Amino acid sequence: MEPIKVGLIGLGTVGAGLAELFFHQGQRLDRRLGRPIRLVRIADLDTTTDRGVRIPEGVLTGSAEEVLADSGVQILVELAGGLTEAKEFVLSAIDSGKQVVTANKALLALHGAEIFARAEAARIGVFFEGAVAGGIPLIRSFREGLAANRVQSICGILNGTSNYILSRMTDQNEPYAQALAAAQAEGLAEADPSLDVEGMDAAHKLAIMTSMAFGGWIEFNDLPVEGIDKVEDLDIAMAREFGFVIKLLALARRVGTRIDARVHPAMLPQSHVLAAVGGVFNAIHVTADPVGEVLFYGLGAGRRPTASAVAADVLEAARNIILGVGLRVPNLGEPGLEQRRLALGTNSSDELLARYYIRINALDRPGVLSKVSGVLADFEISIQSVSQKGQGEASVPVVIITHQTREASVRRAMERLQALDVLARRPVKYRIEDEV
Amino acid sequence: MEPIKVGLIGLGTVGAGLAELFFHQGQRLDRRLGRPIRLVRIADLDTTTDRGVRIPEGVLTGSAEEVLADSGVQILVELAGGLTEAKEFVLSAIDSGKQVVTANKALLALHGAEIFARAEAARIGVFFEGAVAGGIPLIRSFREGLAANRVQSICGILNGTSNYILSRMTDQNEPYAQALAAAQAEGLAEADPSLDVEGMDAAHKLAIMTSMAFGGWIEFNDLPVEGIDKVEDLDIAMAREFGFVIKLLALARRVGTRIDARVHPAMLPQSHVLAAVGGVFNAIHVTADPVGEVLFYGLGAGRRPTASAVAADVLEAARNIILGVGLRVPNLGEPGLEQRRLALGTNSSDELLARYYIRINALDRPGVLSKVSGVLADFEISIQSVSQKGQGEASVPVVIITHQTREASVRRAMERLQALDVLARRPVKYRIEDEV
Repeated sequence: MEPIKVGLIGLGTVGAGLAELFFHQGQRLDRRLGRPIRLVRIADLDTTTDRGVRIPEGVLTGSAEEVLADSGVQILVELAGGLTEAKEFVLSAIDSGKQVVTANKALLALHGAEIFARAEAARIGVFFEGAVAGGIPLIRSFREGLAANRVQSICGILNGTSNYILSRMTDQNEPYAQALAAAQAEGLAEADPSLDVEGMDAAHKLAIMTSMAFGGWIEFNDLPVEGIDKVEDLDIAMAREFGFVIKLLALARRVGTRIDARVHPAMLPQSHVLAAVGGVFNAIHVTADPVGEVLFYGLGAGRRPTASAVAADVLEAARNIILGVGLRVPNLGEPGLEQRRLALGTNSSDELLARYYIRINALDRPGVLSKVSGVLADFEISIQSVSQKGQGEASVPVVIITHQTREASVRRAMERLQALDVLARRPVKYRIEDEV
Repeated sequence: MEPIKVGLIGLGTVGAGLAELFFHQGQRLDRRLGRPIRLVRIADLDTTTDRGVRIPEGVLTGSAEEVLADSGVQILVELAGGLTEAKEFVLSAIDSGKQVVTANKALLALHGAEIFARAEAARIGVFFEGAVAGGIPLIRSFREGLAANRVQSICGILNGTSNYILSRMTDQNEPYAQALAAAQAEGLAEADPSLDVEGMDAAHKLAIMTSMAFGGWIEFNDLPVEGIDKVEDLDIAMAREFGFVIKLLALARRVGTRIDARVHPAMLPQSHVLAAVGGVFNAIHVTADPVGEVLFYGLGAGRRPTASAVAADVLEAARNIILGVGLRVPNLGEPGLEQRRLALGTNSSDELLARYYIRINALDRPGVLSKVSGVLADFEISIQSVSQKGQGEASVPVVIITHQTREASVRRAMERLQALDVLARRPVKYRIEDEV
């Protein structure tokens, strides 16, 4: 039987994992497919480094164009990363009728509407399980497994690097810089860690999932994003005393006619199902009707877990080819989804209420608490508890847990607090996610 | 556009949930499919009871044959339950070229090899997401999302009723009979609860998952099955003191060339990810290469969660029809899987080691512990700890935690202990699952 032919652009971490599957465990793929499938062309700018994979002679080239121009290649796997070139690779593959597999979350979050519109018009499958949550079969679950549902909320831990750093800060009482250095030493964070720790990686993934879950494309730049790079060990320790942990959450939920989507560090009760997700693991909690709730958990990144997802996509693309079906399911799960826009944010009238953790560093003077609580009262923020650590020092941390209140009120109160002359440092706030 | 036509046999709990989706939220299904899809025929012996669903005139009939004989019906949904008739319905639908959706785990566990062989020969899709773990998209994950993996182990909590009862016994210190009565009062257990509490329901689901995960059919009757009906509150309380919880586990793992598959109550460390799965929830933990580990969690039964799974299957079956594809993916994930048999059990040479919890009720006489530990020593079972509760009563519970040992040794030691004249009751053992 004529084998299905696959071309790969990008022999980095995940690319090498995919090549390893093909060249060391290829029989497994053939057996599942019921037909031979071969990785026949690989392009990477670096054609000399040993990736620990036995790549047959003549497969590796320095030219992506060679792979794209090869009319024998039926499935293009884009693992090059980046934006401009990757987009060209993907669009070129679609235009030449190749099925496409990619794990490029930034590309899809920023240019997905254009790419998916082109693919739907050409009736081409574009698969991207590896773009979100590594090996966890999450994208197919949104696309098909949960297809009959109306999603109410998704809430996830989607960046393994950030979660590893926060876990170390929590479990080993390390300050941020030390935990980051440890992550870098273990190869879990890049030399320039900004994409991870500033929340953009989680935001890319959330953008893709939110679009699929709520049935319309979201404008990536409208997504509020805050990373973990300003999380202080002081707040992690204080959170613990109140029974909370700090996690970088990526969440989206229906509020009236809008979708409140955001990435930021938040406090979770220690008993929350996501609070126990430690280290480099990812997890996504979904509430929807009629399924109720579902949680997915697993390794969210890395050579082998992500290769698992990419290989599953390659097999599904191969089935399209075998059956002569260009596009079986709309790539985002619903026809025309990429043409619609989701309205983000909340309407003030139906804004979600939440409790907040507010930490101030007060100068040790009489009347500070009265001034602070006066500001909160001005914005109708009622206080559930106040706790002060230490005494007699130049500046004392005071933690205030509020009752349920509006985010806008807290934001304005924080601005007013910053202007007070009795605080030694900028005040800090965390939203407490009691019900995600 | 001509609608896709669906017929349903069985308007019980899940059937009513599916009918509700079609008749109350049908637009959602049309929108996902990109084409109208209609539930046109429903058969149930009871045509009068109000299920809270607005069923259009002329749809409901008392005759399953009428639905099967309707050549306009393109997808048959079998939710009748039972074995003999259900099997006839499914085979008849396959023979007449209808796509099939079922949630009948007993049918598939016992007659799956025959049904799937018939379906593969006829190139017909048989979908069964609703048969295992309710709304959790687990079957599709084994079929496609994890297709590139070699599975090492699966371990799950698959029976919500049993888990609810054990959770009550653990959290509220209720004895078994009381917790069972509570489950019955809440509609979570049948008047005759044997299918759930004797472990058969979990075993049906495990059989299906094991076949898919390990690439060969298993003979259901070879599966060792033990339920929760003999779990005593005494052992739940003692387990807690040692840092364990008792859960009904359904697990299967590779041991050499065989698959060690089993359903029984076991002890898990309280920190284990499955230990936190409470109430009616289900969860399945998978270890596999290259994905590493993945966990799925959600509501494992009930009208709406299971209807979510069945509706997803109906939509996938409808896509087969629209594209003129009878069978896109082998129904069990791999071509010819149902023709192969998995060898169950363990070879003695590579039997898995585990720690055990052994509880004896010793008559309060000198020398009892020496006799008991002598028996254990005879079988080379070494003791990690011994703990005795109370003193001076006629019979005192003594708990022994062993070091890693062979199951066969423990089984033989238990037989010898039962023959001792110093025990007031039959001794009890639990396997401690440290590494699942």
